[in-house]
Amino acid sequence: MAVVATNTVRTPLELVDQLGQFGVATIHEAQGRTGLLGSHLRPIFRPIHVAGNALTCEVAPGDNWSIHVAVEQAQRGDVLVVTPTSPCDDGYFGELLATSVRAHGVRGLIIDAGVRDVAELTTMGFPVWSKVISAQGTVKETLGNVQIPIVCAGQYVRPGDVIVADDDGVVVVRRTDVERVIAASANRESNERDKRSRLASGELGLDIYAMRDKLRERGLRYEEAQSP
Amino acid sequence: MAVVATNTVRTPLELVDQLGQFGVATIHEAQGRTGLLGSHLRPIFRPIHVAGNALTCEVAPGDNWSIHVAVEQAQRGDVLVVTPTSPCDDGYFGELLATSVRAHGVRGLIIDAGVRDVAELTTMGFPVWSKVISAQGTVKETLGNVQIPIVCAGQYVRPGDVIVADDDGVVVVRRTDVERVIAASANRESNERDKRSRLASGELGLDIYAMRDKLRERGLRYEEAQSP
Amino acid sequence: MAVVATNTVRTPLELVDQLGQFGVATIHEAQGRTGLLGSHLRPIFRPIHVAGNALTCEVAPGDNWSIHVAVEQAQRGDVLVVTPTSPCDDGYFGELLATSVRAHGVRGLIIDAGVRDVAELTTMGFPVWSKVISAQGTVKETLGNVQIPIVCAGQYVRPGDVIVADDDGVVVVRRTDVERVIAASANRESNERDKRSRLASGELGLDIYAMRDKLRERGLRYEEAQSP
Amino acid sequence: MAVVATNTVRTPLELVDQLGQFGVATIHEAQGRTGLLGSHLRPIFRPIHVAGNALTCEVAPGDNWSIHVAVEQAQRGDVLVVTPTSPCDDGYFGELLATSVRAHGVRGLIIDAGVRDVAELTTMGFPVWSKVISAQGTVKETLGNVQIPIVCAGQYVRPGDVIVADDDGVVVVRRTDVERVIAASANRESNERDKRSRLASGELGLDIYAMRDKLRERGLRYEEAQSP
Amino acid sequence: MAVVATNTVRTPLELVDQLGQFGVATIHEAQGRTGLLGSHLRPIFRPIHVAGNALTCEVAPGDNWSIHVAVEQAQRGDVLVVTPTSPCDDGYFGELLATSVRAHGVRGLIIDAGVRDVAELTTMGFPVWSKVISAQGTVKETLGNVQIPIVCAGQYVRPGDVIVADDDGVVVVRRTDVERVIAASANRESNERDKRSRLASGELGLDIYAMRDKLRERGLRYEEAQSP
Amino acid sequence: MAVVATNTVRTPLELVDQLGQFGVATIHEAQGRTGLLGSHLRPIFRPIHVAGNALTCEVAPGDNWSIHVAVEQAQRGDVLVVTPTSPCDDGYFGELLATSVRAHGVRGLIIDAGVRDVAELTTMGFPVWSKVISAQGTVKETLGNVQIPIVCAGQYVRPGDVIVADDDGVVVVRRTDVERVIAASANRESNERDKRSRLASGELGLDIYAMRDKLRERGLRYEEAQSP
Repeated sequence: MAVVATNTVRTPLELVDQLGQFGVATIHEAQGRTGLLGSHLRPIFRPIHVAGNALTCEVAPGDNWSIHVAVEQAQRGDVLVVTPTSPCDDGYFGELLATSVRAHGVRGLIIDAGVRDVAELTTMGFPVWSKVISAQGTVKETLGNVQIPIVCAGQYVRPGDVIVADDDGVVVVRRTDVERVIAASANRESNERDKRSRLASGELGLDIYAMRDKLRERGLRYEEAQSP
Repeated sequence: MAVVATNTVRTPLELVDQLGQFGVATIHEAQGRTGLLGSHLRPIFRPIHVAGNALTCEVAPGDNWSIHVAVEQAQRGDVLVVTPTSPCDDGYFGELLATSVRAHGVRGLIIDAGVRDVAELTTMGFPVWSKVISAQGTVKETLGNVQIPIVCAGQYVRPGDVIVADDDGVVVVRRTDVERVIAASANRESNERDKRSRLASGELGLDIYAMRDKLRERGLRYEEAQSP
Repeated sequence: MAVVATNTVRTPLELVDQLGQFGVATIHEAQGRTGLLGSHLRPIFRPIHVAGNALTCEVAPGDNWSIHVAVEQAQRGDVLVVTPTSPCDDGYFGELLATSVRAHGVRGLIIDAGVRDVAELTTMGFPVWSKVISAQGTVKETLGNVQIPIVCAGQYVRPGDVIVADDDGVVVVRRTDVERVIAASANRESNERDKRSRLASGELGLDIYAMRDKLRERGLRYEEAQSP
Repeated sequence: MAVVATNTVRTPLELVDQLGQFGVATIHEAQGRTGLLGSHLRPIFRPIHVAGNALTCEVAPGDNWSIHVAVEQAQRGDVLVVTPTSPCDDGYFGELLATSVRAHGVRGLIIDAGVRDVAELTTMGFPVWSKVISAQGTVKETLGNVQIPIVCAGQYVRPGDVIVADDDGVVVVRRTDVERVIAASANRESNERDKRSRLASGELGLDIYAMRDKLRERGLRYEEAQSP
Repeated sequence: MAVVATNTVRTPLELVDQLGQFGVATIHEAQGRTGLLGSHLRPIFRPIHVAGNALTCEVAPGDNWSIHVAVEQAQRGDVLVVTPTSPCDDGYFGELLATSVRAHGVRGLIIDAGVRDVAELTTMGFPVWSKVISAQGTVKETLGNVQIPIVCAGQYVRPGDVIVADDDGVVVVRRTDVERVIAASANRESNERDKRSRLASGELGLDIYAMRDKLRERGLRYEEAQSP
Repeated sequence: MAVVATNTVRTPLELVDQLGQFGVATIHEAQGRTGLLGSHLRPIFRPIHVAGNALTCEVAPGDNWSIHVAVEQAQRGDVLVVTPTSPCDDGYFGELLATSVRAHGVRGLIIDAGVRDVAELTTMGFPVWSKVISAQGTVKETLGNVQIPIVCAGQYVRPGDVIVADDDGVVVVRRTDVERVIAASANRESNERDKRSRLASGELGLDIYAMRDKLRERGLRYEEAQSP
């Protein structure tokens, strides 16, 4: 009853890598404040940064069988994105699977569940964002779909969408939006560069963004503090 | 409808810095086990330590407008304390705001909500204690009060109260209590120095604190373990 | 009304240390996926690793009196395991207690509650797994049992059972199972060594574990992705 | 920057109502254990049951403006499905909005956030499943999309998909699957009727489902309990 | 070291009862969306409604001694407001204490911790809003302050402030604001009455609140749905 | 690899039913404030009350196979106690299993996980305390032990221990302690009867329990409130 979609379309790696030069906060803003996965996904080490094509995989609770199926679908530049079909925080993924997926070009893991062997994963420099760290092992009895659209940590992720993740969290960009988001991110970053230097020199955001009139309209009042 | 209190009284920086020589646990004990903010506020890097005058700021959910207003009220030696008017974990504060508040002398941030750009904040060495790390951006539509008494993470904080924060968490000391708490903290620390060396040499707390009689009174019984 | 069991049986330290050469995930698997304490227990620093005989201790909410009682029962090679009689996240344990228990040979702390002085504990290299970090102090008014079987973070722990803990979490091994689990762990590790090198060379788990037939039986279908 | 999709396709109400005759657990099983929204969505009263076409709506944190926009898109037989663009538990919906949407034929509300006026909603018999009950009011400053596909409580919901909700929770059925799921649900229910009477008479599931051989194969052992 | 403030000022009961005619959501809006206690405080039965003068009380974790002290300070028309000095979910209050405080005129309990005997409290019709229901008993060893300003569930509550609580939650109104908030609540309610009937007749909020121009300005677009 | 212990010893039903006449809070106090299961276990309807012999059962995450095995071990007067081997909130138990276990004399269910069909279970009057309500179905692939000692919601439960549960929660009493706890509970209840009438007449706990001297010793001070 489970399906593996083969020959899914991916985003070209040149574009993936261009997008990956930006941080998650920038990309999330640049695409209109959308695409951010839930903040309960935390990196297992810091600093950390990865970008890749989503290789999607569903797992049954306490069962990591379909991750083994997903490995065969991996291509260079993928990021494995795993979601449980119902919530369970077991450790679905550890050093052996990291060794295996890395051998097939996978750059990192996003999992709305648990991982284990985090000391070894850290030594390997294999980036992981997970909900929990748990040594709890899993069985191989129930299948899940691979390379179909999934919901992971509150976002809809299609195979071949681009995942970027860093210390701030994880964002997904639709395959068809990547070029537009690269441009918008670059634009945003150059704006920020200018603002950063003005703010560093002590200029106020109130003035840079010309907020004073609007604040007054909305009824902001300045009042001398009462003597204590 | 929102208010900015200006010319609020602050604790003199000499006192702030004297208090800041102690750890949060010591200060919390020294003022009678009060003033500790909720332990869900965690530092974004470790080790970490800051002390400063509370610069208080309310934010509407998903809206960081009032933080921009607060920057103008900052003075050297302040710590920005931000609380949402209703719970929302967005990333209200990032590198640009940190650059701005630092330019105005702010030493760190306490926020019962989310922050972003934590890799950059870590590189800057800008200390932050937050509820969550989230790249989620915010709007600038709804005002909040600035420099009025607020509740942050379960504690009442007035502008000019002293905030001390370290790896253990965040504590607030009332402006009028600072001198007393400095003395009590110093006293506590010198007591601990003595106890530490006795404990390190193997002397038991049971003896140092003369607990054995009271334990017996309360009915503590020592029983040989049954053979397994 | 509280009891301290004295002269409890411990696991010989040679066995403890042999077991301690393995990771938590390996041991948990080797004993049939049992014995793992809840994943909400997190280490205060990383990397981290400890093994020792469980020295068990119950604390009343907001009261660490019985930990002082437990110190006297400590022996070289123990790991202190503390559970509250009802949930409370105060900081029951800090630098002074760490200094004291270390002087009596205790190697680390597992506590289903809070700790404080984590900067100092980190500097000391004293390993702790806790539910929370909190500077909140505790009183000394209510007793708890020491060296009796307890439930800690969902597992039943007897004095003298072996605790192993690392970056992945905490596992308990019954005293009477230690030799068997050492053998099973060694066996598991040598199996993994072989698999790791095959996986690293790109061989698929599907083939190493001969999963393809079973997958087909269970109805796994491979389908060409529809053009987007 | 926000969009309202008009003239979206709906599932015919005859089909919606046929599907609505089944419980959530039955439907969820009948469509292969998929489509269940997160169990943190709880009904505000019990017993409770509704079925309708999804009328989807995104809200900004602390902002219910787009719900007012959604009302105009409502048709008889809809169920309003609201998701925040970032997590915030304010009370986005109360008696006035319930009065309004009911006047436009809406049968109930699914919201991954907060509601208020629950006493009045209960008196009205207006069914709501929410994450939280909160009196906290919201502003009307930021738009959200209406009648586009959304993720609500972990499931992807398209306008015109069918929502069924009862005491057990909330399930979504794709518009194109409704007829198939009605048939499968009816089938499942008739199977259960038979099993229920056999089980009520004391027949064991072990025998009805012929599990004994498989249990033995998997290594289930029956052992006389040791005398205590 | 603990204090009981005696002869605190209360809000006259006529005003308390006038305010108590309004619901929590109305009052919270009428005072500018402030004063709402955290939504984790839930009533033990529904429907439920109470209004009274805050009788404030701090409890040590797992210790309800100060509630006994508070009873003596009770006056007719009070609502007991209890906050722990550090978080602990034990059952601090049950049938006996309810019998006692009711004999002294107390109308209900707000507690940011646990209660027990909820079947009996329900039978008595004694209204309680708590964080948790727990049978866990408490000791009487550590004092807490009584009738001083406290923070309860995120709000600052002074003795003699007015508490109103219903199915939606709990709100506090400052003693000096009560008359103003009564007037504003009455005004709000009469406005709502008018709007309710217009909304019930099918008129749209978009028109009643004249939102269409502002929506257009902010860039709301209506687009025909693509055929599926 | 899983075991079913047969012919386990049970507590005689006359004792079970005598104990079941008391409430959970009373029993928990009577046995020295021990034995209470975690307060996250909540009843699916109220009022509710059950007492029975623990019939213990482990389930793998997302897998209810062993519950079917447990049914065969049931005897009249049992309460089924189910714990997952790792946390997972699926709905392991519904109307069909309730029908089956009831036919074998089981009086109720305690499960540190999810249940479904709660409307039907409520209609049947089948008492359940669970962690969550979830329609999510489970598989039958992995075995769990039956009628062995387990940890459920933080308590160690042996087959044949007595479970009592009501609106306040769930308590376990060891088989060998039942007679002693019945006597202590009866004693406690008669004490409470006397106190209840004294408290109802307005007598203060401070006097009934003779607390005033001890309060003074601990430093309680009464201070006139400052004029506002």
